[in-house]
Amino acid sequence: MVEKEFVKDIPSKSEDFSAWYTAVIRKAGLADYTSLKGCMVIKPYGFALWENVRNALDKRIKETGHQNAYFPLFIPESLLKKEAEHVEGFAPEVAWVTHGGKEELEERLAVRPTSEAIICSIYSKWVRSYRDLPILINQWANVVRWEKVTRLFLRTTEFLWQEGHTVHRTKEEAQEETLRMLNVYKDLLETELAIPVISGQKTEREKFAGALKTYSIEALMGDGKALQAGTSHNLGQHFAKVFDIKFLDEDQKEKYAWQTSWGVSTRLIGAIIMVHGDDYGLILPPKIAPIQSVIVPIFKKNTKEFVLSKAREIKDVLKGIRVELDDREEYTPGWKFNEWELKGVPLRIEIGPRDIEKGNVVLVRRDTRKKVVSPIAEVKNRVGELLDIIQNDLFLKARRFVEDNTHYVEDYGKFKKTIEEKKGFIIAPWCGSSECEEKIKEETKATIRNIPLAKVKEGRGKCIYCGKETDLYVYFARAY
Amino acid sequence: MVEKEFVKDIPSKSEDFSAWYTAVIRKAGLADYTSLKGCMVIKPYGFALWENVRNALDKRIKETGHQNAYFPLFIPESLLKKEAEHVEGFAPEVAWVTHGGKEELEERLAVRPTSEAIICSIYSKWVRSYRDLPILINQWANVVRWEKVTRLFLRTTEFLWQEGHTVHRTKEEAQEETLRMLNVYKDLLETELAIPVISGQKTEREKFAGALKTYSIEALMGDGKALQAGTSHNLGQHFAKVFDIKFLDEDQKEKYAWQTSWGVSTRLIGAIIMVHGDDYGLILPPKIAPIQSVIVPIFKKNTKEFVLSKAREIKDVLKGIRVELDDREEYTPGWKFNEWELKGVPLRIEIGPRDIEKGNVVLVRRDTRKKVVSPIAEVKNRVGELLDIIQNDLFLKARRFVEDNTHYVEDYGKFKKTIEEKKGFIIAPWCGSSECEEKIKEETKATIRNIPLAKVKEGRGKCIYCGKETDLYVYFARAY
Repeated sequence: MVEKEFVKDIPSKSEDFSAWYTAVIRKAGLADYTSLKGCMVIKPYGFALWENVRNALDKRIKETGHQNAYFPLFIPESLLKKEAEHVEGFAPEVAWVTHGGKEELEERLAVRPTSEAIICSIYSKWVRSYRDLPILINQWANVVRWEKVTRLFLRTTEFLWQEGHTVHRTKEEAQEETLRMLNVYKDLLETELAIPVISGQKTEREKFAGALKTYSIEALMGDGKALQAGTSHNLGQHFAKVFDIKFLDEDQKEKYAWQTSWGVSTRLIGAIIMVHGDDYGLILPPKIAPIQSVIVPIFKKNTKEFVLSKAREIKDVLKGIRVELDDREEYTPGWKFNEWELKGVPLRIEIGPRDIEKGNVVLVRRDTRKKVVSPIAEVKNRVGELLDIIQNDLFLKARRFVEDNTHYVEDYGKFKKTIEEKKGFIIAPWCGSSECEEKIKEETKATIRNIPLAKVKEGRGKCIYCGKETDLYVYFARAY
Repeated sequence: MVEKEFVKDIPSKSEDFSAWYTAVIRKAGLADYTSLKGCMVIKPYGFALWENVRNALDKRIKETGHQNAYFPLFIPESLLKKEAEHVEGFAPEVAWVTHGGKEELEERLAVRPTSEAIICSIYSKWVRSYRDLPILINQWANVVRWEKVTRLFLRTTEFLWQEGHTVHRTKEEAQEETLRMLNVYKDLLETELAIPVISGQKTEREKFAGALKTYSIEALMGDGKALQAGTSHNLGQHFAKVFDIKFLDEDQKEKYAWQTSWGVSTRLIGAIIMVHGDDYGLILPPKIAPIQSVIVPIFKKNTKEFVLSKAREIKDVLKGIRVELDDREEYTPGWKFNEWELKGVPLRIEIGPRDIEKGNVVLVRRDTRKKVVSPIAEVKNRVGELLDIIQNDLFLKARRFVEDNTHYVEDYGKFKKTIEEKKGFIIAPWCGSSECEEKIKEETKATIRNIPLAKVKEGRGKCIYCGKETDLYVYFARAY
């Protein structure tokens, strides 16, 4: 009875994906909206998940030679306006500070929507000689973009992210860095979040405001829509020229520096939910789950101490694994099973008096909901193995989903039908023109997600819109 | 020659403390001002130091049962104005957002100067029953206070901090929590930062805007001025009543909750510099130093590979210690010695061809600048031991400084003379009235730092200002 009550409160994933998404976030205690338009509070369970993602990425950022730093939240309007494309891209979304205390400011300050402008203005003072290069800096920060339509984790007025900002001596080094960090993101998502991604280059129309080239990783959500999960920009010399970042090279010539920037955000939490979750709630990959395994003791009054003391023993044995013992007495085991499933804990350990007598516990996988019996003496190894298996299986399942929902289409009629009926990724030939891209978007709401780095098809085809010959096969999808 | 050049650039600590402070921060690469009034950039070395402080504190915050979360940056004006004392305290320092994109907002938004108002408005929705309590949440965040006079790390328009916000069922629990976190701060400073502090209660005049009671830890800087290094507030029911945080207690009665808040900030970096540094620059306590030990190889052309390969071996042996090998060839060893001293690296390892032949390295302590020879075979143990000794000695030295600069005074004439000539802490009897406190501040610039929790003097004395009998002995000082 209780079980049904509890689960009934979540809309079905297949019937109403959007309502399911919001319900899962709120009921699992990840986040919630506040009275402030488009601003969310990230609750402790959601923040612990973000901390695990952040730590896994921070480690990779440092291992690739970057250091963290912190730059001002505010950007004077004049700085933001220096790079024309950049301000055009971001001005409509900027929150402006106009007063400090009772005084009106002489110049308005933008609350950073991204930090290229403020950071470049500072870098221009740091860079003098080729010996000062490269600068490899990352910042973990909050940013604000005044969005009209918001959705928890995916698009909020304020969000948390990291933004790398690097400066290089040569064009080649900047390009190498751009792709290196794209790969770091791909590795983070696939290894830790169990989310397969497509790496590729954004079209001119979709690139970052002020960049030379933008690359992205694109993931496929459970409803067949794509999500841009991370971007890495080769900024060329655009910002260096505007912000005067010059250096004296070894050949004694003064040159403009080459730059990159790259970022991922709390949007990744949205991706985790939408890729792995099911009708019972969240399913978290073990590597980033705040709680990897939960022990639910099953007892009556007369077996309470017997069961609890064994449960505590098992908890101690599992040191090194993020494990919790749910010894609350005001809830039934059934209620607890549902709650921990909703919260996506990868592995549940059930232990009752009869299990103990047989020297066993019952292990229940969250992803498959299958039970296996394990001898208590082997519980540490079995839990460790199962967590590895779950991590791997989640990735394989997600990859199979992408494969099953990636369609090769060479004909515009079929393209329209596919995007409407099947959703998912469509790989199709495209001539390279922004006009065709724009028309396709207008007519089908599908956008080019990226031009994949890995060749997906040999030979040449004809642009699905204009019919011109091309060897560009690109990923289309409707996207968040 | 080079050595002198380099060091000469820092003003003497004893002659011009303030100029010394700023020069050390900039030359050691901790931080710098930006073109934005009062806003600083925390550079990689400074940020790595902050990360170590943050991690040490975060661990303690979690060990005492708290979880991290994240709340919105913006606070609607109407929310901030709900608690009268609170808004009066903070309104003059608030940066106001008035526009989102091109549109003027219906209500101005404060960029958080502290988050009580926004968090309480959210907690009021979370708290229904005594079962929802306690709420033990912490947030790491940036905050903005529009300051007129700023100084790197000590007082900047934007700074980084953590703010704990807890909700409790009873008055006693809230008071316990307030003191628990004050103790956590004391332990952080004394154990990790090697900074002795005085724990005590703030006077009515100096307490947090909206609090019932404020407690602080106060540290003594190298120039004899005090620094408030952390505060913990018992908020009583002030905010609960204003923001309607009520719960149904076990006795079926509806009650207002009891709250606390507590915080420390990047100001701690300023304390580390001012407590430990000397004329050669920073001195960092080993536990939080980004680099605990630096290996400086000394070689000529013909001994280069011989020395470098041994230096690399030693670096490998020192795994687990944060060690760096400075193998740059464009700088002389002397230049490197100075640079790493300036940066406050606790232990330098010098290694040259003759040392190697004898099977030795030279270890140089940053704090005492004394050299000891260590057999290479024992280098790991010796370095570990020395880092522990340095950590301990730094604390003892700082504690001795506090003892030497703490004066018991029972007479106002002597008080004025002491504060002018000797500086430091003055312990003196005070009647408890805000009038005397205010007058003393006007006449001497000394403020009551706190009323110490640990009794500092037996018996009764007479208020140094009005002569009234009292058993309150309090800490006075001029402060940052």
